[in-house]
Amino acid sequence: MSTVIINGTVVTASGTSRADVRIEGGKISAIGLDLASGTDTIIDAAGKHLLPGGIDVHTHLSMPSMGTVTCDDFYTGHLAAAMGGTTSHIDFCLQPKGSSLKAALDTWHAKAEGKALIDYGFHLIITDLTEEVLDEIATLPSLGVTSIKLFMAYKGSLQIDDSTLFRCLEKARDAGIMTLVHAENGDAIELLVQHALERGQVAPIYHALTRPPQLEAEATGRAIALAEVLDAPLYVVHLTCESALGRVREAQARGARIWGETCTHYLFFTKLDLERGDFEGAKFVCSPPLREVQDQAALWVGLRDNSLSVVSTDHCPFTFDPQKMVGRGDFSLIPNGVPGIEDRMMAVHQAGVNGGHFDLERFVALTATNPARLFGLEGVKGSIAVGHDADIVLWDLGREHTISQATSHGATDYTLYEGMKVTGTPVMTLIRGELVTNHGQLEAAPGSGTYLHRARV
Amino acid sequence: MSTVIINGTVVTASGTSRADVRIEGGKISAIGLDLASGTDTIIDAAGKHLLPGGIDVHTHLSMPSMGTVTCDDFYTGHLAAAMGGTTSHIDFCLQPKGSSLKAALDTWHAKAEGKALIDYGFHLIITDLTEEVLDEIATLPSLGVTSIKLFMAYKGSLQIDDSTLFRCLEKARDAGIMTLVHAENGDAIELLVQHALERGQVAPIYHALTRPPQLEAEATGRAIALAEVLDAPLYVVHLTCESALGRVREAQARGARIWGETCTHYLFFTKLDLERGDFEGAKFVCSPPLREVQDQAALWVGLRDNSLSVVSTDHCPFTFDPQKMVGRGDFSLIPNGVPGIEDRMMAVHQAGVNGGHFDLERFVALTATNPARLFGLEGVKGSIAVGHDADIVLWDLGREHTISQATSHGATDYTLYEGMKVTGTPVMTLIRGELVTNHGQLEAAPGSGTYLHRARV
Amino acid sequence: MSTVIINGTVVTASGTSRADVRIEGGKISAIGLDLASGTDTIIDAAGKHLLPGGIDVHTHLSMPSMGTVTCDDFYTGHLAAAMGGTTSHIDFCLQPKGSSLKAALDTWHAKAEGKALIDYGFHLIITDLTEEVLDEIATLPSLGVTSIKLFMAYKGSLQIDDSTLFRCLEKARDAGIMTLVHAENGDAIELLVQHALERGQVAPIYHALTRPPQLEAEATGRAIALAEVLDAPLYVVHLTCESALGRVREAQARGARIWGETCTHYLFFTKLDLERGDFEGAKFVCSPPLREVQDQAALWVGLRDNSLSVVSTDHCPFTFDPQKMVGRGDFSLIPNGVPGIEDRMMAVHQAGVNGGHFDLERFVALTATNPARLFGLEGVKGSIAVGHDADIVLWDLGREHTISQATSHGATDYTLYEGMKVTGTPVMTLIRGELVTNHGQLEAAPGSGTYLHRARV
Amino acid sequence: MSTVIINGTVVTASGTSRADVRIEGGKISAIGLDLASGTDTIIDAAGKHLLPGGIDVHTHLSMPSMGTVTCDDFYTGHLAAAMGGTTSHIDFCLQPKGSSLKAALDTWHAKAEGKALIDYGFHLIITDLTEEVLDEIATLPSLGVTSIKLFMAYKGSLQIDDSTLFRCLEKARDAGIMTLVHAENGDAIELLVQHALERGQVAPIYHALTRPPQLEAEATGRAIALAEVLDAPLYVVHLTCESALGRVREAQARGARIWGETCTHYLFFTKLDLERGDFEGAKFVCSPPLREVQDQAALWVGLRDNSLSVVSTDHCPFTFDPQKMVGRGDFSLIPNGVPGIEDRMMAVHQAGVNGGHFDLERFVALTATNPARLFGLEGVKGSIAVGHDADIVLWDLGREHTISQATSHGATDYTLYEGMKVTGTPVMTLIRGELVTNHGQLEAAPGSGTYLHRARV
Ligand SMILES: [Zn+2]
Ligand SMILES: [Zn+2]
Ligand SMILES: [Zn+2]
Ligand SMILES: [Zn+2]
Ligand SMILES: [Zn+2]
Ligand SMILES: [Zn+2]
Ligand SMILES: [Zn+2]
Ligand SMILES: [Zn+2]
Repeated sequence: MSTVIINGTVVTASGTSRADVRIEGGKISAIGLDLASGTDTIIDAAGKHLLPGGIDVHTHLSMPSMGTVTCDDFYTGHLAAAMGGTTSHIDFCLQPKGSSLKAALDTWHAKAEGKALIDYGFHLIITDLTEEVLDEIATLPSLGVTSIKLFMAYKGSLQIDDSTLFRCLEKARDAGIMTLVHAENGDAIELLVQHALERGQVAPIYHALTRPPQLEAEATGRAIALAEVLDAPLYVVHLTCESALGRVREAQARGARIWGETCTHYLFFTKLDLERGDFEGAKFVCSPPLREVQDQAALWVGLRDNSLSVVSTDHCPFTFDPQKMVGRGDFSLIPNGVPGIEDRMMAVHQAGVNGGHFDLERFVALTATNPARLFGLEGVKGSIAVGHDADIVLWDLGREHTISQATSHGATDYTLYEGMKVTGTPVMTLIRGELVTNHGQLEAAPGSGTYLHRARV
Repeated sequence: MSTVIINGTVVTASGTSRADVRIEGGKISAIGLDLASGTDTIIDAAGKHLLPGGIDVHTHLSMPSMGTVTCDDFYTGHLAAAMGGTTSHIDFCLQPKGSSLKAALDTWHAKAEGKALIDYGFHLIITDLTEEVLDEIATLPSLGVTSIKLFMAYKGSLQIDDSTLFRCLEKARDAGIMTLVHAENGDAIELLVQHALERGQVAPIYHALTRPPQLEAEATGRAIALAEVLDAPLYVVHLTCESALGRVREAQARGARIWGETCTHYLFFTKLDLERGDFEGAKFVCSPPLREVQDQAALWVGLRDNSLSVVSTDHCPFTFDPQKMVGRGDFSLIPNGVPGIEDRMMAVHQAGVNGGHFDLERFVALTATNPARLFGLEGVKGSIAVGHDADIVLWDLGREHTISQATSHGATDYTLYEGMKVTGTPVMTLIRGELVTNHGQLEAAPGSGTYLHRARV
Repeated sequence: MSTVIINGTVVTASGTSRADVRIEGGKISAIGLDLASGTDTIIDAAGKHLLPGGIDVHTHLSMPSMGTVTCDDFYTGHLAAAMGGTTSHIDFCLQPKGSSLKAALDTWHAKAEGKALIDYGFHLIITDLTEEVLDEIATLPSLGVTSIKLFMAYKGSLQIDDSTLFRCLEKARDAGIMTLVHAENGDAIELLVQHALERGQVAPIYHALTRPPQLEAEATGRAIALAEVLDAPLYVVHLTCESALGRVREAQARGARIWGETCTHYLFFTKLDLERGDFEGAKFVCSPPLREVQDQAALWVGLRDNSLSVVSTDHCPFTFDPQKMVGRGDFSLIPNGVPGIEDRMMAVHQAGVNGGHFDLERFVALTATNPARLFGLEGVKGSIAVGHDADIVLWDLGREHTISQATSHGATDYTLYEGMKVTGTPVMTLIRGELVTNHGQLEAAPGSGTYLHRARV
Repeated sequence: MSTVIINGTVVTASGTSRADVRIEGGKISAIGLDLASGTDTIIDAAGKHLLPGGIDVHTHLSMPSMGTVTCDDFYTGHLAAAMGGTTSHIDFCLQPKGSSLKAALDTWHAKAEGKALIDYGFHLIITDLTEEVLDEIATLPSLGVTSIKLFMAYKGSLQIDDSTLFRCLEKARDAGIMTLVHAENGDAIELLVQHALERGQVAPIYHALTRPPQLEAEATGRAIALAEVLDAPLYVVHLTCESALGRVREAQARGARIWGETCTHYLFFTKLDLERGDFEGAKFVCSPPLREVQDQAALWVGLRDNSLSVVSTDHCPFTFDPQKMVGRGDFSLIPNGVPGIEDRMMAVHQAGVNGGHFDLERFVALTATNPARLFGLEGVKGSIAVGHDADIVLWDLGREHTISQATSHGATDYTLYEGMKVTGTPVMTLIRGELVTNHGQLEAAPGSGTYLHRARV
């Protein structure tokens, strides 16, 4: 059984070629001219570009948070992802206090069971570092998990102390595991929030004002320092501001093994959006919060010059009504998180490539190749290359589209990008050579997505 | 009753003049030419320079630490200080866990009672921040205490968390109090120490290797970030390395109210000294530890260009035998601290002024004027100016001297500076117009030193 | 013959004291309490502060420039200076092409002859570096000139090449002479101006747009690099922007002998002022041009934290009509320069001290003490200290005043600061103990100002 | 006519795959599994890696310099290149003063005529910018030349002034041409050299001492500033030191279109090599000179983190005897330049990849893909991708080899890398599908190399 995609233009992080792509056994078996002969299935990609399927390494599906649960599960989230050109993601599996890591993983595997449309892996969020859990870290790679995550914020729930961070960085380093951090100083934030509420400052904008960028830059610098002392690899998730980016740049210039990620929404919105009327600002509440225009500019430069390696979504969706509404009288009760898994590829392509910040090859690097290389999927995902999984998205770079909730596929009741016009959209998605979406139609069955057993880093 | 010092050369932070100095009621009443007439007492300072008495804002006399007590009390420590040209100091008063700040202060006042030879004030080290203690901070200025100190290291004993630091910075800011921090990441250090001991790395050098400069720069940056968010004044004590200095410089360039201090020994020794034989390295064990030659160079530049405002001693003396000896088989048991209260002025003058790093006016600024201005003694101490206390040290800038334990006056059994040749020494010390030392003789009685009730900052 | 100023408050760069000041032979002979007895003349300064007379190290009186001559001579300029609290200045003596330095100096001495009201010195601008002139540099200190200046801009007239700059830095270093640079890249500016004119961009704002801050930062960095290679002292005049300040900070942090100056107008105006209607923008044309609000903020921080040592005026006055009017149809013909010699002290006091950027002592350092120390006047000018010239200005810090051309004393027909309200003005000025101005009245005769024979640096 | 390389491992900048490569008409027509059937020629690459042929964008073949001519011509230089795994280069064509650019190009084409073994393009060095030449710049792309180069050093011969640099940057920007600079301050260097010679400092080490790194950082910063003002693309050749790299990093972080290159020898040698005995130091004389160990470390980090995009050779070969010998009594007469065209790929692979600085994909990026993309060869050269020229080098990554002059192929009488042991060497080289070298045997005929008509950038 083979498939050949003919007449397309193949884009990888290192270049662009007019070429056919042959797929056998779910993998790419050849890239070349005139490969169509003797094939079972031919897909004509005339006028289309073939990009590696997007990999979104930062998502929260069906995740309990702040007394509720994110509203996309492994079906609705995957449907939205696939429609948006994303074919793999790495979701955050959360260790409940007192639980083993294995038990947490089992829970998350169950969430995906029978629902998955795209391929999925797990990062493990450590919230409770007992000696048993510390020892368990080294066993994670055997379960296909080669990344852990720690929160430096969310005091009283997810936040760990520096001792835990330091121990985890060391264990992870020895086990070939990447450590991820949510870098904000939770102690200070907790007090700023408390002060704001005492003063009756309850509107969504105070979410941003009580989490100033200095506290992100501080925590970013702290995590980097701890990692550098240990020579441990560190990946800073959802970096939002110029000052935190500066810390990453400095570390990279010292030769440290530090990488940074930003997320789609930080490139498009600012804290002014938190002041939108009718409580609409709540739709934009996420942590770290949205920043300033000059931070956006800094992030685009970082994506261009490689001080940032990845743009992910931090897809953490809640409905406006009723979920976000809970915080109507108290910003601190608004669930933290925004949707984005369907929008990322189109939005970043539009502003990044069409907007002149970087070329199509860099777009591929940021959304697919780098995520794969950093997270143990090298040689399997993230590129259109012989031997790789045939996760291929056909893009029509000339197609005009207006992003809208009405035509979106996830479970939220809004999209941040409502009304945004883009030129260039995915039109067909293949995963391991199988058609998953085709011009807006779902072609795959729930459960077709498979677990990503990732390699050490 | 008046005294006139004639024929001397008066040095202040802003200039040098040939002038007589008249003293009445313990205060300077005039600086001018030919002031000798009608005076009770004349001191001839021909060939001498009159410098403001040194102010040492970082000392630990009779302080309990690591199961022992620093070996200088308010008599021996003051004697050494006065002989070395220092006429005021601010000592660290330590809040025991569970104690009120007032009770701690009472304890420290009792230590000085009947012994003091020079004037003394107190910073308050907060170790246990209950709600009562938080409220008590605002009362400190009424007790003459306008500075508090927090430790970001010494996990399990002195170390506070970021929440405590943040609350204290805010309270202190509102009360006109300066916050001081010992900036090292204690969580990471604790683990590095534990690892070293597990590996049998017990020699003094491991004290330095388990406290790398990144962990000082990190904590320095963290304290700065918290202070900047609150616009609170912050003074970083005993800064030792180029990277931490960089954090201070950046903050100052952003306009933040951040000041830095280094200590004498960081300017003269490096971590290589910790490898001296016969356990002599233990004499050089202090925290943060001694660094590299390039850090020394950076500190000298900082003292010159005002990114560092003060050079103090962190005088924290322990005898080599028996006190330092306790750590013979385990560096982590060596009491942390070195003596220096008698050596500071001579050593810094020698290397700083004679060595060409800065001029005599800057030396005065670093050792007297800046400490006074930063710590609520402006107009009273720190300069030779009308209305100021007549705390004056006569220096013979041509006098050659070799520093030695044999001719030193403190209670330790060693000096770090053994054998160091200097040109320029204090020869006479007056405090509030009274002769305290004269060519090596003590002229004052125990109890003559008075408490410094300091103003808000 | 003696004078005593009683009841005032004496301010120096290192502190403030209630004290009388006795003056004998034009010099300060004593500072102290109750000095009035046995004095010829008593000045009652009750309620007043005594500050060292301002020293303005950057002025252009009667200077030929762009086909005209600056409109203040050594009488009108001095009158304005004295009224504004400035008692000394260092003017720029310009070497005409082909001339010896000595001949240029003779010309400038003649300009001051019989007119001077305040004390004056000269920097020497080198425009034509022959071998003879190179040799002549070493002779300048014997003429009382210990600073030379070079222009990196004004292609075709004042601009020198790097070879000239490098040779001069080396010669000056060896002779104890400070080198000053006007740091802008004149080659690039010339082309940008030419392009603008070709496009018909002739309004005053194009003066700023054709001299972007990058070209100042570049030239600043270049001069610093050349000075550092030679270990030569360098003083960057009229620094205007954050990026150039960054270059200075970096050099200082490397320990280089680099100092920076900014000028009053860069602290108060921005390039938007060049767009004022009715060609009023031309009043604000100076080089380097006015910058942005964020540059102003950076300059204030620099003045506070000592990365900038001096605020001078670059007083280079032209009348709006007819002098500035010449450029009505072509911004490149507008004479470059603004007045400010009368306004500096009041304006900087108002925004700097009353505005909370720094204290009165720092104000004194920036306007008097530092200029004196940097330019060979230490011990003579710049402080209220025994043995110094009695250049003293009585300030009424509570006096409200509105700056206006109507009440100004120079020869220009406008002031940039029109309508600016200040609290705190000079009310009396003494130079070498002689009254020069008293509540707006001139009390000295033309020719009473004397030449400053400056010491090596 | 087709060729298939079977059983190899294909490496590109974005990944590595086990795949066969089919070549038709000199171009890659397919990459895939089992492509051998129906092929004319099969090359078995079992155990070998297929890398894109190296592209060396900085060479000087048969170039007149300092009274002599570089000793490799387009035959010997190409032979060495091909043996070393380099299949394309861009040589510097030098405009003689008074000449048109076209005439210079004709001369360089003649040099290559009938000799070339590998493909070659030309950068144009502008030394004499008349109005005619300025206009001629826009015509260069029609001649296949899309890069010009300017020297900021070599006063009196190649050095241009800032005005020329600025004009060229602007013209080049408008014409889609990249501007290259040799960034050192030639004015200062000329004087330092003159001083050294006056003092009798004639040994090779003075070549380095008279060209300090500050002068490279300065010129680098200057070129960047001029390019940024114009938003013109700029490529800084042979960057050697941490401080210059800092300038590049800062510009990239501001979003400027600035790229940096270093050269092989700066990664392996330091200025200490200039002190080798028997005048051997002369072999290491090049400009900018070799630097310090810490600069090497900084360059490796830069190559890793993308602040440096390319490692080239600056192959500028002179024989030790007689060419370098000319400077025996005067370092300033030693021809500036070192050989390296044969050594680059092996040496950088050894220290870079085997030494752990980066992976094989990054090696490909630095030596082939980035050079192609930056210099108008995208889609043609620099990658193993469908449609690209089949410039493929088979590497045996396990082969051990000792670099030696005895086994080298260029015209110099020495190699800097004598005795260096490497694991991993090229064993076979194809250009446009034709075998050029095979296990040390030349298989191509002189004249087989073709001119690279490069696209706009
Ligand atoms: Zn997060
Ligand atoms: Zn998240
Ligand atoms: Zn401490
Ligand atoms: Zn201490
Ligand atoms: Zn100027
Ligand atoms: Zn000027
Ligand atoms: Zn070169
Ligand atoms: Zn070259």
